Amino acid sequence: MALWIRFAQADRTGFGTLEGETVLVHEGDMFSSPQPTGERLALAGLRLLAPTRPTKMIALWNNFRALGEKLGVAAPEEPLYLLKAASSFQDPETEIRRPASYQGRIVYEGELGIVIGTRCGDASEAEAERAIFGYTCINDLTASDVLNKDPNFPQWVRAKSFDGFGPFGPAVATDLRPETLSVRTILNGQERQNYPISDMVFPAARLVSLISRDMTLEPGDVICCGTSVGVGTMKGPRDVVEIVIDGIGTLRNTLVQ
Amino acid sequence: MALWIRFAQADRTGFGTLEGETVLVHEGDMFSSPQPTGERLALAGLRLLAPTRPTKMIALWNNFRALGEKLGVAAPEEPLYLLKAASSFQDPETEIRRPASYQGRIVYEGELGIVIGTRCGDASEAEAERAIFGYTCINDLTASDVLNKDPNFPQWVRAKSFDGFGPFGPAVATDLRPETLSVRTILNGQERQNYPISDMVFPAARLVSLISRDMTLEPGDVICCGTSVGVGTMKGPRDVVEIVIDGIGTLRNTLVQ
Repeated sequence: MALWIRFAQADRTGFGTLEGETVLVHEGDMFSSPQPTGERLALAGLRLLAPTRPTKMIALWNNFRALGEKLGVAAPEEPLYLLKAASSFQDPETEIRRPASYQGRIVYEGELGIVIGTRCGDASEAEAERAIFGYTCINDLTASDVLNKDPNFPQWVRAKSFDGFGPFGPAVATDLRPETLSVRTILNGQERQNYPISDMVFPAARLVSLISRDMTLEPGDVICCGTSVGVGTMKGPRDVVEIVIDGIGTLRNTLVQ
Repeated sequence: MALWIRFAQADRTGFGTLEGETVLVHEGDMFSSPQPTGERLALAGLRLLAPTRPTKMIALWNNFRALGEKLGVAAPEEPLYLLKAASSFQDPETEIRRPASYQGRIVYEGELGIVIGTRCGDASEAEAERAIFGYTCINDLTASDVLNKDPNFPQWVRAKSFDGFGPFGPAVATDLRPETLSVRTILNGQERQNYPISDMVFPAARLVSLISRDMTLEPGDVICCGTSVGVGTMKGPRDVVEIVIDGIGTLRNTLVQ
């Protein structure tokens, strides 16, 4: 297993693997034979960046049985999803600002993220499994009062695409079996979500296979697997939200209202 | 007025302005003081590329009064939109293949596209006007039988994001007043759409201003302004669709079923 991160240090950016509190710097393409440079950096001296630069971030709706049952909606026959704008992507350990134009509720949604490593289209489940580079933590922030504001058009994309509403990281973990893990969300030190990934309607390889029939997935692309029970509002003025998945790490951001 | 295009020639890509059948090659950043290199190329020897590489493509729903009236939906109070995936972007003068996984109707939607030239967030209408680089032609292809397939979740993103469903071009025209123009869609030589851009619920600068309050817009980003009456199905086996806006040009693609 490896933990891949991206970092900034003064005016330089780079990537590498995390070993304890040390980063082993690599060069080349993270997804295709990256080479260690021999340089080792202390994590404490670096600023973490979102671990990939996705060409798209796909976010699932209604992909956990427990939440579907709570909301009274049947499990879908196919993955149901939206896209989050590139301008919403946000680095770990940063502040996210409430949009000036929006006064309503902002909710956290702790999620597993699938990170693609190999271009894939019309992939079988076996091909999809091989196309997965690893897994990351997602906080799929949502301006929930936007969603059903217009009676004729549910505004999923807009509600989830405000600047900063797409933090992910801190790392991409390879060689994980996500179905053995849980997603925990900690709001200001209190656990609010703790649900097993095995409850997903569409498990990871199936999800990648089915979505790849709709659109070609590129290295670095992220699929946010949807959330489960325990979603809640952040009431500010400052809320520290941590999304924790054992084996990946803790994605920590602060919403500033 | 200038017509900006991107092109490929053998294994080289470049950009420049179109003068009749000649391209004046430029270097640097299309959106920030591009410089002519002095090289002139015959358009006939080049392959046109989509004229920008957007970080996002935003597509409006219900933004023309005539179509809203036909569908019996009131004009919205705010812009209603979705995102089209980067993997759907398609060059002019190319073939678009029916997705192997989808057997239903595929419709054309001729639209005006706004191309952003300057990063803008929380922009006033005057700032938004200055942030607009120019305008292009859009064919917002839609797998219309996907839209309402699931009773709980309208699949706007999926229906409009299949590979190749986002062609735009052939050029970005600067210094246009789009409200004086019309969008025409020609299917296999027959005119199917011909509607005035002045019928938009949210005109261009207002649209950019309002959307920039939701998400920061980047140079090259495209806003598809929505379509009006005359949308229809392409029944194949080969359909040539042309989106024509005087002053911009003709975006021509062939859907192969």
